[in-house]
Amino acid sequence: MATRMKLKLKTVFLLYFMVSLLGLIYALMQLGQRCDCTEHDFPKDRTISRLRGELHRLQEEMRKLEVTKQPLKQPAKPSLPTIFVITPTYARLVQKAELTRMSQTFLHVPRLHWILVEDSPHKTPLVTDLLMKSGLTYTHLHMPTAKDRKLQEVRSIFFIFCLIHACSCSFFVPYLKTLSHSPPQGDPSWLKPRGVEQRNEGLRWLREDRRAQPGGDNQQGVVYFADDDNTYSLQLFEEMRSTQRVSVWPVGLVGGMKYERPVVEGGKVVRFHTGWRPSRPFPIDMAGFAVSLKLVLANPEACFDGEAPMGLLESSFLQGLVTMDELEPKADNCTKVLVWHTRTEKPKMKREEALQAQGLGSDPAVEV
Amino acid sequence: MATRMKLKLKTVFLLYFMVSLLGLIYALMQLGQRCDCTEHDFPKDRTISRLRGELHRLQEEMRKLEVTKQPLKQPAKPSLPTIFVITPTYARLVQKAELTRMSQTFLHVPRLHWILVEDSPHKTPLVTDLLMKSGLTYTHLHMPTAKDRKLQEVRSIFFIFCLIHACSCSFFVPYLKTLSHSPPQGDPSWLKPRGVEQRNEGLRWLREDRRAQPGGDNQQGVVYFADDDNTYSLQLFEEMRSTQRVSVWPVGLVGGMKYERPVVEGGKVVRFHTGWRPSRPFPIDMAGFAVSLKLVLANPEACFDGEAPMGLLESSFLQGLVTMDELEPKADNCTKVLVWHTRTEKPKMKREEALQAQGLGSDPAVEV
Repeated sequence: MATRMKLKLKTVFLLYFMVSLLGLIYALMQLGQRCDCTEHDFPKDRTISRLRGELHRLQEEMRKLEVTKQPLKQPAKPSLPTIFVITPTYARLVQKAELTRMSQTFLHVPRLHWILVEDSPHKTPLVTDLLMKSGLTYTHLHMPTAKDRKLQEVRSIFFIFCLIHACSCSFFVPYLKTLSHSPPQGDPSWLKPRGVEQRNEGLRWLREDRRAQPGGDNQQGVVYFADDDNTYSLQLFEEMRSTQRVSVWPVGLVGGMKYERPVVEGGKVVRFHTGWRPSRPFPIDMAGFAVSLKLVLANPEACFDGEAPMGLLESSFLQGLVTMDELEPKADNCTKVLVWHTRTEKPKMKREEALQAQGLGSDPAVEV
Repeated sequence: MATRMKLKLKTVFLLYFMVSLLGLIYALMQLGQRCDCTEHDFPKDRTISRLRGELHRLQEEMRKLEVTKQPLKQPAKPSLPTIFVITPTYARLVQKAELTRMSQTFLHVPRLHWILVEDSPHKTPLVTDLLMKSGLTYTHLHMPTAKDRKLQEVRSIFFIFCLIHACSCSFFVPYLKTLSHSPPQGDPSWLKPRGVEQRNEGLRWLREDRRAQPGGDNQQGVVYFADDDNTYSLQLFEEMRSTQRVSVWPVGLVGGMKYERPVVEGGKVVRFHTGWRPSRPFPIDMAGFAVSLKLVLANPEACFDGEAPMGLLESSFLQGLVTMDELEPKADNCTKVLVWHTRTEKPKMKREEALQAQGLGSDPAVEV
């Protein structure tokens, strides 16, 4: 009996050791993955580099001088279709930082109208103030996420609970198995599609606003859904401006992939390069398409379905609007990455909490 | 004997269960921390909101029209001191995204000269191309991190190894104890101060360049060290432009705190609000100070010491340049947060690797 017990004890320790080892290997792998770049080898000596640097500098100075001779683009081309950017946002530590750099991007784009929708029962002073000082054309809306959706979050917590227990009980193997069936974000947030009500509120406002202001140019425009943590190149907006129905392009760093993109043959989208369920009607990230305002107005019922199965939120909106055959590939036939699905880390507040416990925390009156 | 064994086995399982429970509680806490905002309650009805929104929109349109009547700021004020921004950067998946949004910020700042220093044995095509298309005044440098520093990284891995084992063996208690003594980043990257050689290379170039171009305005300028993942408000640059010796201001979301900042009394910095070792000579994050070019040139030996003990890198540079009494507080006596120490998540590439194993990975010719 004692020997069997000893054996069992040994097994337990062996398993425990293996788990530690796995953790260690994982940590080592994370540390090892420093360089994602491919090595290009084109040695140039320093002098040439410096001279080229100086040349570029002069070229840029010249270009800037030329720019100042012309008036700004925005009023010069009043016929440019307006880009309506709908952004859902919610209060969190990095919100002001994210919205700040996003507004700096948009400030470079002519005829952009930012529709910012807060997940909140009221407009917050932080966002109100930021928009007022932004120098952008904007509409500030708010729409709290419905309670039954919040309930869904509680359900998600229980799901996580089960996952953790499953993992710890069966030593990672089932977890590794589920990986190939789970959606790609690598984050529990996929359990609760965020921003659904806010995007729909943006669409509602846009439809109402256009109805209230009839006119010739009234239906000219493009609608784009831009989350507040992604990174947008300026060229992206010029690509989407000519959207007739629905335009599409690659999105970088999304879905556990370097990029996801529509695959174009003969000028038509024929399939999608994605790591997860390519059979979805539109396996496209929210950042990977724009819709013409005309199409949005012609389909007053089209909106995002918060109850759509995982990964089908984009499809729930696009399905009624367009077929795959009609998609308009942009960004050089979907060969250029002009938008990146970057994610900002949630800042750790351990020291803040420790100092607050001593009454020495940061002044809450200072807006961060 | 069997009973004692049984008891021990019970203890092992009990401890194991407790660890799982701790993990669960942590996961629950992470999920619970959704809203960092304080709730403000000022209900306004929709119509008023919409009218105000429209009003702002019109005001902004007016402002933009006025802006176009004036020439751009840059050539209009040639006497403005140039801001030299030194940025160390290294190849990684999010590099292009980070540099893209950073360049968009800098493009709004008049008389800014970007000194971008790659941690690489050569200039990479990705960065070269991005700078050429940026429209910025820039200097492109490169300086690979020395090998002995890379050795230090190996040492760090062993340190992590020891940490993991200490944690797993003694069930978190010692780990929790070390927290109060460890530096604040919550990330192993603090073990290897990154960007030291690159910042020093930037300083070297600047000193050489100024010596090579003598002239009246030659020593007018400000030097700022801007990492490529932070978020910078445009106002920050106008604050630092008037730096006489060394100016300082708060940094948001740094060191496990909502913000760190110099505390100002009677116009002078008297101490620092920080969660970690406030006794350091200059407990200021790299993003929290700027130095006048004159001071940099007058102290040709001042540079960053990569061998400096943890958290003393900034001090190693500032110590020879300035005393606490001489620091110039900016941003309304250090009461406004104008820069945020944001960090971008490293994207997961699990699906990419799985597809690559099947020969279906993303096209390496597509730059991300």
